[in-house]
Amino acid sequence: MQVREMINTHPHAGRSTAEALLTCIEECFSCAQTCTSCADACLGEAMVAELTQCIRLNLDCADICAATGAMASRRTGSNIAVLKAVITACAEACRACAEECSRHAEMHEHCRICAEACRSCEQACRDALLQMQDS
Amino acid sequence: MQVREMINTHPHAGRSTAEALLTCIEECFSCAQTCTSCADACLGEAMVAELTQCIRLNLDCADICAATGAMASRRTGSNIAVLKAVITACAEACRACAEECSRHAEMHEHCRICAEACRSCEQACRDALLQMQDS
Amino acid sequence: MQVREMINTHPHAGRSTAEALLTCIEECFSCAQTCTSCADACLGEAMVAELTQCIRLNLDCADICAATGAMASRRTGSNIAVLKAVITACAEACRACAEECSRHAEMHEHCRICAEACRSCEQACRDALLQMQDS
Amino acid sequence: MQVREMINTHPHAGRSTAEALLTCIEECFSCAQTCTSCADACLGEAMVAELTQCIRLNLDCADICAATGAMASRRTGSNIAVLKAVITACAEACRACAEECSRHAEMHEHCRICAEACRSCEQACRDALLQMQDS
Repeated sequence: MQVREMINTHPHAGRSTAEALLTCIEECFSCAQTCTSCADACLGEAMVAELTQCIRLNLDCADICAATGAMASRRTGSNIAVLKAVITACAEACRACAEECSRHAEMHEHCRICAEACRSCEQACRDALLQMQDS
Repeated sequence: MQVREMINTHPHAGRSTAEALLTCIEECFSCAQTCTSCADACLGEAMVAELTQCIRLNLDCADICAATGAMASRRTGSNIAVLKAVITACAEACRACAEECSRHAEMHEHCRICAEACRSCEQACRDALLQMQDS
Repeated sequence: MQVREMINTHPHAGRSTAEALLTCIEECFSCAQTCTSCADACLGEAMVAELTQCIRLNLDCADICAATGAMASRRTGSNIAVLKAVITACAEACRACAEECSRHAEMHEHCRICAEACRSCEQACRDALLQMQDS
Repeated sequence: MQVREMINTHPHAGRSTAEALLTCIEECFSCAQTCTSCADACLGEAMVAELTQCIRLNLDCADICAATGAMASRRTGSNIAVLKAVITACAEACRACAEECSRHAEMHEHCRICAEACRSCEQACRDALLQMQDS
């Protein structure tokens, strides 16, 4: 991805964008793809009937990660309160998804990878929130 | 839209779905379209340079409304904490967008209509949150 | 939804927007919600293992309908070739989803409703393409 | 991103997934972010009034890239005709966006970077289509 290059060439790049927010953007787009893949992989398992909660959480997580990644990318104007609320929701979605995927991690490798990705994205969201608090 | 028909034919329809959540789903999909249109209309105005904050908030609002509408549509399994967080963020986005659009409502009819749609969606989100608190 | 109100108040409203395109926008947003619901309802069925192809097609359809609805809403500038290609893809997605949902329509009411919605959206897409050909 | 890890752990991984499709998925998610950023950067420029067509094309491109990336990620069941149509539309959107961004590349670095990203994504889409033709 070209998150840093794009934001560094933004006309408002003088206002430094927290490194944590840049990482958050990358993690969100990546996590959206991973959760989309995991939901689909679970759907393809013979034991799909035992994975419906996992699929549900993955679909939810992909949706909020996609929205958060896009919204966090915007530097023109400002919408800080909304961004904080969205990143907060995203962190919660990632936490819930990671927890559910972990339950199936031993049996399904795609769930193990996805749990890791969600934990990583959750952390990126919480780090971004911390840096936003200071500003 | 067929929100009610679809949810009434859901295998888990025994668990009654709060009427407020059904309205919230409809309002979110509708608001996502309205904000997409408003951002585009503002972009087409001669005075676009004075409408950049409005465009920014409309794009953000469209993104979170689309995600929230999809997530609120899901009844299989459960993800209540996440849904509350997302609907909370959506209400905030609608509030912020309505406030900004109101500033331009006298000059631009599309902003007047959009402000109304956002206030309606914000209310639907807050009503859904109230009903979710009781359950 | 406020599709017509928003487009009628667009600064470029002088260029008449084909009625068919307005219907297409409404149908796409509505279909995106219906397919999201149907995928979720199928996921909640005891016989989910027999509905995985249906869920897959519903998820795909929801994605392309959401994108098409948003893209078709834009009147500022022009991107006709791209819009035609996207609406063409959307029509195909709706056709495929309707066909699959029809297979399960007798057993699952949500699939019957969804098949209807997809056929309606497919028709709206094809009508929009026809009107775009004339201009 | 974990595109390859996720797809390699898919229960249907026996059916080899064309390398070109994997690249296409990565490029689509990346391009969706880049175009979202570029639309926003153009919106933040003093000369925004001369960049409205560019913003329009970037918003469209982000939408179709996001949908295509998600749809191409799915390996359960099959929806080949629809996937081909969507990737075709995505390639066209990237081509149009790259062309428009190129017009502003000398003046705006973010447009130069974005044009490159769109050309890369367009190529990835066309390569994926070629490999899909052989199967």
